[in-house]
Amino acid sequence: MAGTDRTQMPLLGGPRVVLIEPQLSENVGAVARAMLNCGLDQLALVNPREGWPNSKALAMASGATEVLDGAQAFATLEEAVADVTALYATTARPRELTTRVLTPREAAADMRAVQARGEKVGVLFGPERSGMTNEHISMADTVISVPLNPAYSSLNLAQAVLLVAYEWFTAGDETPPDTLSMSGTRLAEKQELIDLFGRLEAELDTGGFFRAPDLRPTVMRNLRSMLQRARLTDQEVRTFHGMISALTRSWQHTQNAKRRRGELED
Amino acid sequence: MAGTDRTQMPLLGGPRVVLIEPQLSENVGAVARAMLNCGLDQLALVNPREGWPNSKALAMASGATEVLDGAQAFATLEEAVADVTALYATTARPRELTTRVLTPREAAADMRAVQARGEKVGVLFGPERSGMTNEHISMADTVISVPLNPAYSSLNLAQAVLLVAYEWFTAGDETPPDTLSMSGTRLAEKQELIDLFGRLEAELDTGGFFRAPDLRPTVMRNLRSMLQRARLTDQEVRTFHGMISALTRSWQHTQNAKRRRGELED
Repeated sequence: MAGTDRTQMPLLGGPRVVLIEPQLSENVGAVARAMLNCGLDQLALVNPREGWPNSKALAMASGATEVLDGAQAFATLEEAVADVTALYATTARPRELTTRVLTPREAAADMRAVQARGEKVGVLFGPERSGMTNEHISMADTVISVPLNPAYSSLNLAQAVLLVAYEWFTAGDETPPDTLSMSGTRLAEKQELIDLFGRLEAELDTGGFFRAPDLRPTVMRNLRSMLQRARLTDQEVRTFHGMISALTRSWQHTQNAKRRRGELED
Repeated sequence: MAGTDRTQMPLLGGPRVVLIEPQLSENVGAVARAMLNCGLDQLALVNPREGWPNSKALAMASGATEVLDGAQAFATLEEAVADVTALYATTARPRELTTRVLTPREAAADMRAVQARGEKVGVLFGPERSGMTNEHISMADTVISVPLNPAYSSLNLAQAVLLVAYEWFTAGDETPPDTLSMSGTRLAEKQELIDLFGRLEAELDTGGFFRAPDLRPTVMRNLRSMLQRARLTDQEVRTFHGMISALTRSWQHTQNAKRRRGELED
């Protein structure tokens, strides 16, 4: 999806993303991209296998360099989360620990509430292949488990980060869920529609559209309903008037042509 | 994230994912993986640049072969959506068309309602670099636009598919948002906690913990509150009893050792 607008300030300040022993730098780059998509910019790396900083991460980050530039590498998980008060571990539901488990959506609301109190929030993600150990999970206060197709629930690292970050972003986002993109016009007012229906009805009468006069009110109501369902703009009402003019002219042209060829009597 | 359970039947039957002129087969593979994560299995490819079928897609799909095996390639978008009644286009908010625009969450609820009426649903995704044209968008009934960081809203193809598919899956998912993963135990009953508090209080009394007797009720209430906040299981209550025993034995050992060394009188 296109749509990046570099003139807008990034929305930053979300939870710290902590990658435990990430194996591939490309994945770190993809994580940075997913983070910036969702307004997160604090990235911590615990003992990254390919070292840090790393040019391969940069190549995969598609311009999310500000996240990588600010990323910090740590030798241990304990150092990476030393100042955090609310730590979440993103993993499959743990089998051997008694832990609070939240969906990403519930966790997002939880994180926002914790952050509103001024606390520092961190989210852990385990190594790509092996995932998180119970040792890692036991550092966290809460587990985030993403409900997915139980027959195929393995997410790659950047996609796991994306879903958690997306829920965090969405929990604070006020985009109306259902809008009409207007491209500089406005919805037609009822009077404009009433005028259009009146003209359409008159021209249809002239053209012999209503063959069964007793069905005329029903047919006309259905036409109005169809056109109102489309939520016409003022511009589209003008376009519709133009179509009616063109169609009636087209008919007149045809009639005139026929008349010239002597197919119709005067 | 680990957690795939191949013994579970996949949850299939969601909307058809239609990729318009995908450029890289690796991206098609990553899309297949994201789809299967969310229980979608209908993939249509319009004029894929690298041809179809394609081994590079398979390499990136991490086992989501059932989606790729069933994928169909079409020469035109019109053919790929010929039997669809509700078509969504995933793109940035269109600037030159008057269109209904939904968030992925609202679109998911919309799709579920449409599918419940027995209609066929499709979701369009544009080519990686250029995105969708207004020509493509005008084929759709509705636009899906993902609210993201306005300064960095460009998603890669598989991540755009993941977010739309994830919202579709989540709209039908009944996972409780907040649970306690119990690992085979149960929460402690109040009587077990009352017994624990009683023993703890008695041992603390013996050890001279309550130096200001008038504060004793307050301190004990705070301890109860702290321990109840942890939502102890029956197993953890037993572990706590064991800790009290070990700590009091430790004190006795120390006392006995001091006594043997003549540091304490009998």
